[in-house]
Amino acid sequence: MTQRATEPCPSSCYTPASVKSRCFNLCLLGFGNVNRALVELLCSKRAEMREHHGIDWRITGIASRRLGWLVKPDGFDAAALNIEGLAGEKVSAQAVENLAGWLNTAQPNVLFEATSLNVETGEPAISRIRAALNHGAHAITANKGPIVHAYRDLRDLAALLGRCFLFESTVMDGAPVFSLFRESLPAVNVSRITGILNSTTNIVLTGMEQGLGFEQSLRKAQDLGIAETDPSYDIDGWDATMKLTALVNVILDVPLRPQQVQREGIRALTGDKVRRARADGQPYKLVCRAERHGDEVHACVKPEQVPLTDPLGLVSGTSSIVRFETDVLPGFTLTEENPGVETTAYGMLSDFIHAAKVSDHWTSGTRS
Amino acid sequence: MTQRATEPCPSSCYTPASVKSRCFNLCLLGFGNVNRALVELLCSKRAEMREHHGIDWRITGIASRRLGWLVKPDGFDAAALNIEGLAGEKVSAQAVENLAGWLNTAQPNVLFEATSLNVETGEPAISRIRAALNHGAHAITANKGPIVHAYRDLRDLAALLGRCFLFESTVMDGAPVFSLFRESLPAVNVSRITGILNSTTNIVLTGMEQGLGFEQSLRKAQDLGIAETDPSYDIDGWDATMKLTALVNVILDVPLRPQQVQREGIRALTGDKVRRARADGQPYKLVCRAERHGDEVHACVKPEQVPLTDPLGLVSGTSSIVRFETDVLPGFTLTEENPGVETTAYGMLSDFIHAAKVSDHWTSGTRS
Repeated sequence: MTQRATEPCPSSCYTPASVKSRCFNLCLLGFGNVNRALVELLCSKRAEMREHHGIDWRITGIASRRLGWLVKPDGFDAAALNIEGLAGEKVSAQAVENLAGWLNTAQPNVLFEATSLNVETGEPAISRIRAALNHGAHAITANKGPIVHAYRDLRDLAALLGRCFLFESTVMDGAPVFSLFRESLPAVNVSRITGILNSTTNIVLTGMEQGLGFEQSLRKAQDLGIAETDPSYDIDGWDATMKLTALVNVILDVPLRPQQVQREGIRALTGDKVRRARADGQPYKLVCRAERHGDEVHACVKPEQVPLTDPLGLVSGTSSIVRFETDVLPGFTLTEENPGVETTAYGMLSDFIHAAKVSDHWTSGTRS
Repeated sequence: MTQRATEPCPSSCYTPASVKSRCFNLCLLGFGNVNRALVELLCSKRAEMREHHGIDWRITGIASRRLGWLVKPDGFDAAALNIEGLAGEKVSAQAVENLAGWLNTAQPNVLFEATSLNVETGEPAISRIRAALNHGAHAITANKGPIVHAYRDLRDLAALLGRCFLFESTVMDGAPVFSLFRESLPAVNVSRITGILNSTTNIVLTGMEQGLGFEQSLRKAQDLGIAETDPSYDIDGWDATMKLTALVNVILDVPLRPQQVQREGIRALTGDKVRRARADGQPYKLVCRAERHGDEVHACVKPEQVPLTDPLGLVSGTSSIVRFETDVLPGFTLTEENPGVETTAYGMLSDFIHAAKVSDHWTSGTRS
C-alpha cells in the first residue's frame, strides 16, 4: 500500500477562506459513456465542489481497451476529453504497459471503474479494484460484477486499508440507495425489498401493451438503441437479478449469489397476455423481490401482474422503483424517473465527495 | 457554553472490542406521544446502538407542562417511563425550577425537543433549543416551528458551537428527507419540489370520495382521533404549508416564510366535486409545490386534481410523498406508507446517531 500526501493542484486558484481545498488525482478505468459523462459532470461541478466541499481534482490516468493505459501526472485537459479532443490528449500522454505501471505513474487518490460487466465472475474488474485499493486509492465502481461477486472481500479490504469502496451507480443509476442506508437509515432492519429495476423489459412490455408482439417490441427497442444486440441479459432477467443481488448483499448484509435468485424472464409472455393484463388494470412488470427469513433471504425475479393502484404498477420506460419494508418505516419507496447517463455519473460523483469527506476526517490537520 | 467530557455509562457493560462506546446524557423536552415512542425505541435499539454505533445513553432530564422540570443525573429507569411507571419515576426525581436549572443539573449531551407547535412564532421551542445549544448539547427537534421561524439562526448557532441542530422528524415523520440531501445528494441543484404532506386532508378527501360531505368526513376523522378538535390547522393547509416551508428553507436554502406561501385549504370542495374528480381518474389532493426561479422560490399549497397515473394520485391515508426535480436526477420521489409514531421517533433516533457520529469525528482520540 502506497500512502501519498495530497498536494495542492496547480489549478487550485479559487479557494474561499471558509473551505481549504485538497486536490485528488483521479484515474478512469473504462472510457465509455459513463466515465465520459463523469468527466463532463466533474467539469460542470468544479466550482461547486471547490467552494462547498473543498475538493479539487485532476485526471492523471485514463485506461480502456481501445486507448491502452494512458497517464499524465500533471493532469489531462479535462475539457478536451471529448471525441474531438481525445486524439490530441492521447498523443501527449504517456502510455504504460499495464495496470501496475498505470497506478505507479498516475498515483490515483480515486479510481473510477466503469468497465463492462462480467456476469459470471466479475473479473477483471475485481482484481483491478483490489489493486487500486492496495495502492492507496479509494475505489468507486459503476459495475455490478464486483458487488455481486466480491462485495464482502472488497468492503473488508477497503476498511483494512482505510479507504472507501463505493458503488452508488450500480443500482438505479446514480439515485441514492446505498448511501441512503449507509448514512440516513442507521439501526434499521429491512425485512423485504420489492423493485422494478430493469428498463429494457419495461420498454419491451410497454411496446407489447401498445400492440406489438414480443419479438417486434424487442426489435423496436434494439433499433432505438435501448436493448442490446444480445438482449438475453435484460430479457431473461439477469440484469434485474444482479441488481437485486447487489441490494441484498449490501443492504440486508446477507451473502447471496445470482444463481440463488429464482429467475424468470419475460420471453414466455405473449402480446395478448400482456394487453389483457393491462386492460384489467394489472399490467405485467418484471418484479424483483427479496424477503428475509431469519438469517436467510429468499429472492426472485419474475414477471408479475401489478395493480395500477400500486406505484410499482405505474413504473415504465427507463424509470425504476424500489420499496423497502423495515421495522421503523413500514413502507419506504424510492422512484427514479427518466434518468440519463449523467445520473449514473452523478452517483460516482457523490461517491467521490463522500470519499473525500471521509478521508478528510482521517487526515484532518494535514489539509493543504 | 459548557463543554463536558462524555463519561462512561454505569450500565455500559457490553462493549465489543471493535467499537468503544460513549455514553450520552439525553434530555426530553415534551413528554407526549413522540418522546414516549422515542424512549421505547431507544430501549429496543439499545444493544444495536452499542454494538454498531458505539453509543450508550441515559435519560437525565424530562420536562413537560404536566411533569415540570425533572432531573435524575444518574439516569431515569427508561423501561419504567410508561404510564404505569411514570408516577414512581417522578417521585424519585429531582424537580428544578426552570430550563436553566434543568440544563445545569441534567447536563444533556442531546436535547430531544418535541413540544407542541406554535405556528405564529415557533416559541418557546426556539429559545429552548438555543439555550440547549449554548449549554453544549446537540439539539434534535420534531417541531416544525423552529425550522420555519428560525432555521438559519439555529443552524448557524449550532455550527458556531460545534454542535448539531437536526430535525428529520419535522417532515414526512421520520423518513429520511433532510439527511438524504445532507448526506447522499451533495452538489445537487433542486429546481422543484412537489408533495402531498398532510394526512388529515388525505383522509377527509378519501371519506368524501366514499360518499360523505366535507363536514361529515371531517367529523368522522375527528371521531377516529385523526383530525384535531380544531381542524383548521390541517384543513386550511397550514400543516402542509409549514412542511413545504421547512423543505424550502433547508433543501433549497432559500429563506421562505409561511405567509409567503400561496395557501388554499380543502373547505371549498364539495362531496360531489370530489367524487366526480375521482370518477374521472383525477382525484383531488392537497398538493404542495415549490419552484425555484433564480434566487426566488414560488410556493403554493392548494387542492389540485392529480391523475391516477401519477404516483402522487395514489397517495392516501397517512401516507405521504415528495418529488424532487434536480439537475442530475430528473425526478426523484420518496413515498412513505403508513407511518406510525415510531416512525417519527425513528427520525429523532437517526438524528441522534448522526450527531454522535459527527461529534465522534470532532473528539476522536478522546473516547472512553
